Amino acid sequence: MAEAKKSRSGKNSAQVGVLGASGYTGAELLRLLLRHPKTEIKALTADRKAGQAMAAVFPQFAQFDLPKLTTIEEMDASALDLVFCGLPHGTTQVVIKELLEKQPELKVVDLSADFRLSDPLAYENWYGHAHQAVELQKEAVYGLVEIYRDEIKKARLVANPGCFTTTSILAMVPLLEAGAISPDDIVIDSKSGMTGAGRAAKEQMLFSEVSEGIHAYGVAHHRHMGELDQEFSLAAKRAVTPSFTPHLAPMNRGIYATHYVQAEGGTTPEQMHKLLAEFFKLEPFVQVLPFGTVPQSRHTRGSNYVQIGVIADRMPGKAIVISTLDNLVKGASGQAVQNMNLMLGYAETAGLEQIALFP
Amino acid sequence: MAEAKKSRSGKNSAQVGVLGASGYTGAELLRLLLRHPKTEIKALTADRKAGQAMAAVFPQFAQFDLPKLTTIEEMDASALDLVFCGLPHGTTQVVIKELLEKQPELKVVDLSADFRLSDPLAYENWYGHAHQAVELQKEAVYGLVEIYRDEIKKARLVANPGCFTTTSILAMVPLLEAGAISPDDIVIDSKSGMTGAGRAAKEQMLFSEVSEGIHAYGVAHHRHMGELDQEFSLAAKRAVTPSFTPHLAPMNRGIYATHYVQAEGGTTPEQMHKLLAEFFKLEPFVQVLPFGTVPQSRHTRGSNYVQIGVIADRMPGKAIVISTLDNLVKGASGQAVQNMNLMLGYAETAGLEQIALFP
Amino acid sequence: MAEAKKSRSGKNSAQVGVLGASGYTGAELLRLLLRHPKTEIKALTADRKAGQAMAAVFPQFAQFDLPKLTTIEEMDASALDLVFCGLPHGTTQVVIKELLEKQPELKVVDLSADFRLSDPLAYENWYGHAHQAVELQKEAVYGLVEIYRDEIKKARLVANPGCFTTTSILAMVPLLEAGAISPDDIVIDSKSGMTGAGRAAKEQMLFSEVSEGIHAYGVAHHRHMGELDQEFSLAAKRAVTPSFTPHLAPMNRGIYATHYVQAEGGTTPEQMHKLLAEFFKLEPFVQVLPFGTVPQSRHTRGSNYVQIGVIADRMPGKAIVISTLDNLVKGASGQAVQNMNLMLGYAETAGLEQIALFP
Amino acid sequence: MAEAKKSRSGKNSAQVGVLGASGYTGAELLRLLLRHPKTEIKALTADRKAGQAMAAVFPQFAQFDLPKLTTIEEMDASALDLVFCGLPHGTTQVVIKELLEKQPELKVVDLSADFRLSDPLAYENWYGHAHQAVELQKEAVYGLVEIYRDEIKKARLVANPGCFTTTSILAMVPLLEAGAISPDDIVIDSKSGMTGAGRAAKEQMLFSEVSEGIHAYGVAHHRHMGELDQEFSLAAKRAVTPSFTPHLAPMNRGIYATHYVQAEGGTTPEQMHKLLAEFFKLEPFVQVLPFGTVPQSRHTRGSNYVQIGVIADRMPGKAIVISTLDNLVKGASGQAVQNMNLMLGYAETAGLEQIALFP
Repeated sequence: MAEAKKSRSGKNSAQVGVLGASGYTGAELLRLLLRHPKTEIKALTADRKAGQAMAAVFPQFAQFDLPKLTTIEEMDASALDLVFCGLPHGTTQVVIKELLEKQPELKVVDLSADFRLSDPLAYENWYGHAHQAVELQKEAVYGLVEIYRDEIKKARLVANPGCFTTTSILAMVPLLEAGAISPDDIVIDSKSGMTGAGRAAKEQMLFSEVSEGIHAYGVAHHRHMGELDQEFSLAAKRAVTPSFTPHLAPMNRGIYATHYVQAEGGTTPEQMHKLLAEFFKLEPFVQVLPFGTVPQSRHTRGSNYVQIGVIADRMPGKAIVISTLDNLVKGASGQAVQNMNLMLGYAETAGLEQIALFP
Repeated sequence: MAEAKKSRSGKNSAQVGVLGASGYTGAELLRLLLRHPKTEIKALTADRKAGQAMAAVFPQFAQFDLPKLTTIEEMDASALDLVFCGLPHGTTQVVIKELLEKQPELKVVDLSADFRLSDPLAYENWYGHAHQAVELQKEAVYGLVEIYRDEIKKARLVANPGCFTTTSILAMVPLLEAGAISPDDIVIDSKSGMTGAGRAAKEQMLFSEVSEGIHAYGVAHHRHMGELDQEFSLAAKRAVTPSFTPHLAPMNRGIYATHYVQAEGGTTPEQMHKLLAEFFKLEPFVQVLPFGTVPQSRHTRGSNYVQIGVIADRMPGKAIVISTLDNLVKGASGQAVQNMNLMLGYAETAGLEQIALFP
Repeated sequence: MAEAKKSRSGKNSAQVGVLGASGYTGAELLRLLLRHPKTEIKALTADRKAGQAMAAVFPQFAQFDLPKLTTIEEMDASALDLVFCGLPHGTTQVVIKELLEKQPELKVVDLSADFRLSDPLAYENWYGHAHQAVELQKEAVYGLVEIYRDEIKKARLVANPGCFTTTSILAMVPLLEAGAISPDDIVIDSKSGMTGAGRAAKEQMLFSEVSEGIHAYGVAHHRHMGELDQEFSLAAKRAVTPSFTPHLAPMNRGIYATHYVQAEGGTTPEQMHKLLAEFFKLEPFVQVLPFGTVPQSRHTRGSNYVQIGVIADRMPGKAIVISTLDNLVKGASGQAVQNMNLMLGYAETAGLEQIALFP
Repeated sequence: MAEAKKSRSGKNSAQVGVLGASGYTGAELLRLLLRHPKTEIKALTADRKAGQAMAAVFPQFAQFDLPKLTTIEEMDASALDLVFCGLPHGTTQVVIKELLEKQPELKVVDLSADFRLSDPLAYENWYGHAHQAVELQKEAVYGLVEIYRDEIKKARLVANPGCFTTTSILAMVPLLEAGAISPDDIVIDSKSGMTGAGRAAKEQMLFSEVSEGIHAYGVAHHRHMGELDQEFSLAAKRAVTPSFTPHLAPMNRGIYATHYVQAEGGTTPEQMHKLLAEFFKLEPFVQVLPFGTVPQSRHTRGSNYVQIGVIADRMPGKAIVISTLDNLVKGASGQAVQNMNLMLGYAETAGLEQIALFP
């Protein structure tokens, strides 16, 4: 473990800010950071709720003495070591660009999609406009710790991956890298809890619209596909475009991704399992279950853990790989803290050791 | 519409019995039959709850004057026109054999899996023992109305299909029959509500075990695969073994099946949509939504309707076909009543016109 | 049963319109009216969604040929017999006033709170402004069928009661009228499903804000109290102001009201039960369960039925009276159809015989 | 803070066992103890699941090296400092009696109801049989920390209170002690999540039996009343028998108790609020919200915190006091750890600082 860097303020703890603190990933960051041994929360912004106390926005923080919510403009970043940026896609790149121009030593973990695609053309293709901070786009490191740990340690700007993509990259990249599965026959059927859709007041997110039923959405055009293509292609060393369909399930938390794969080069499902188990053997947060075991999303709820299962399909050469995690923790804020830990030289697991809350 | 057959009792209405009335499909049969214009419920059995009033077992029937629950032995079937059989798999075949030996004119709609597979070897393969009523197995008609309507009208014994299989057969069989999709590349990712698992008291069905999460089960060995193989192979005129993975979602009702298919012979997704729309054009209970529309399971809740959507995947030649229905209605008891209507010469939609309960 | 009045159009069926058809009570009206033997839906309005097809707003109606949603101004009411008005509180009174000025023969069932309080001062007190259609306020009949059946039959304008109030009036009014309970010691702890809060996109109604938890709201100032005071006082023949606390439970449908009462004049809980059983003995939609039986909200789901239970508390003279119904059916749209049936001379139960959907 | 007692084994950490580890309170104990800085889990028993690994029973513990589940007979308690006893009511008293005869120095936190009532007659009255360990019954301390902190520190056997009772005692006892409310007019309407009913496989606890609805249970005869009577009477210094009705809400965790109280001696609701705020001012786990604020159960989920709100009812002299907590944490296992901390001389909040998981 590298020595922890001294904080800019000279203090023992990192001084951090959270931009966009009134959403679910913001609340989840606070839940983790308030119990982190090495951070102090010094700034919280939330444009629409500026001026309010955090306890009014999220009453579970009633007992804590937290900074008031401010606008981004009102925030004083000069003494901060690191900011988490949980702003909407699109506006983020401008905000971060301005921040880093003023405070080049600041470290940033961005939870939006703005810096996840490294190719400006791919970005333009998926988001419909040219990137407005191309230099930073080049600099940004894709923050999937289990794949890019070393790069993250040295990074100033980390693009925290999406929840769907984290789930599927962890399950597929080791198999693609090893040439164990056919890159052309990957079907990903993914199911997400409702917090993945955020806290904006939309009719289609009301309790009565989404409870007691399930449905697919963004079929064939969900933006997380851009990230999957990028990381799968890097792993396979050629262009890969998996079939990916996200579904909304009536639960608060959890991504549950069922991957249907076809063996390449005669790899058996047991060998796929072994490859994954080997790949993650030393990882603190990824558990490859015994061969044939089917995971459940609820067993990762509230924790930074990922569970992966590999099951042989009944047709030779076909396997089903299932991975699951909590979209707000390992799929967002937990992974962001894991990135922060690496960037600031802390123990990677600091503040992230909560065990899943089940039931 | 054929003339309604006269009931054996000479009455205007059919005299029906429900074997296994204390489970969820039993309750759902009662909900439908009590408002059916042409049936009278004359016998209800439930071995473990024999002697109880139906209102004690299902308080929603408090206002109805229903027969007490009895054992099967206590039931007098001599004046019945038709029985619905909602008994556990395995014991059913013996019970029905004995019933029909005593009452050869009785009609039977069996909701168990006992008579769904027409091939004795396939049955033995999936269920682990030789069929104990092979003659009846030959006689039984597979009760998927939209495919076997004419045979059902003449049948004495109808094997009501499973909920997963109804959902996927309706979506896939028209495409397989038309040679529009590759039989070797079908991936079915299916999600079921909890009532599909029945009312038996099992730890893994408790509220706190299954709410707030999702998981696959029976991966690569769920028995409904036998039915899928049978019907898909008949449609494709060669052996088909799809990949099929059922999941349990935290909701009461609904099957939501996402089918990943590969075009054959250059068929476009739009053409697949047209084929399905054409196939079901006159069907009262199957709605093919406009091309590109994604259905939601909740919009069929409590109704006998099926909704099907076809969406082009982003890779040429690939499409996503989604079908959804209420597992207790079109997936079980509604389809059973639809079968009864055909067998007794009633209007096919009689007693089945409830509109989905949403929200 | 009175002879059904002939419809204004001379047709066999009543021509009806639904103002505010894009909300949950609107959808529920359609679910019932589409299967009603004597009504034709001729107009549907929804200001924000005018121009859309009903199937786009509520996909469960995909198979029906329904009028497009229009603004109220665009609606032609000249051939209508009756309109259901599901508009927001406050604006309703102006809309209905204008409608009835133009079409004095039109009948109206209003689902808002605008005409429920008969006393202009009480209205002003609870709603903060003077009533803008005082003459109509005088004319309006409170549409709780089991209490005001005769008045409703003759009414032109019926104020459909609130869901909380229907639940508690049915449980309490017979006991207050009989002098069986103390008017000063009524505590009502009521629990509602989420559809009671409507379909407007508000942060506090999002799935993740209201699932997996429960909370009270509107404590000590919920507007339904005005209705309770009015009807309880009429029954007790003196001013009654019960303690009433509504809660939101993580379910779609259902009101579950637990009433804590104190006997008056030595009435025993058994006698209270008998009084209620007697009062509702001939009512098609109210079921008083055997003494000591505790109802469950789910056993009325999707139906127009009410279930009432009476249980002796452990302290002499105290009893617990529990009533439950589906807030969208007997608590709103079902009761509205029941009112329509009376106003138009149809069988009171027409279109309302669905049995509860459980599970 | 008293000096931590040295563990019997001479180790730095307490060696603890959990009897009845396969239920929900058992799992919750493990979740907390595995992250407790001062405990080592040395024994786990579960009669029906003896021989299994804990990870098979609760897969969220997959990454931990835990003792196998054994029977109680197989457990070696000789090196243990403390056991948590999560066995069924009734059998517990015999098991603990035998344990303490063999190991008189062992400390015990009992989560069953067996030692909560100090009066043998009250016990017999509520449980239908004479207590079988009367001496221990006398010795046991009622483990509600905020009321009996000093006694708990010195105790060998602590009776961990019930979840309903903890919730209501915290809200009512300070007011009763101060003479601020009438002891004869307390109505408690309490709502519980499903985990309060345990993990035993019972039909009435299946997902489809309890989701999408709410109902009261144990009306007028729930055993927690015995505890309420005992503690309320002690506080009021005379016999108190509140009206108490528990309800089951479709959620996993949470007790939400709405208390309807009548002022005594002219106390205003504001004064009641002040009394409570004062009483709990230094308590680490009890938060009295600003006057008029309504708490929500979800804001305590997964944490050991209690939130209390006081609201004036509209009738003078009446108030509504709402308290809420997580039944598995402060209502069971969290409080058990809090008791352990006091009994072993650890910081009271050790291992209990998790912030509520919302959403």
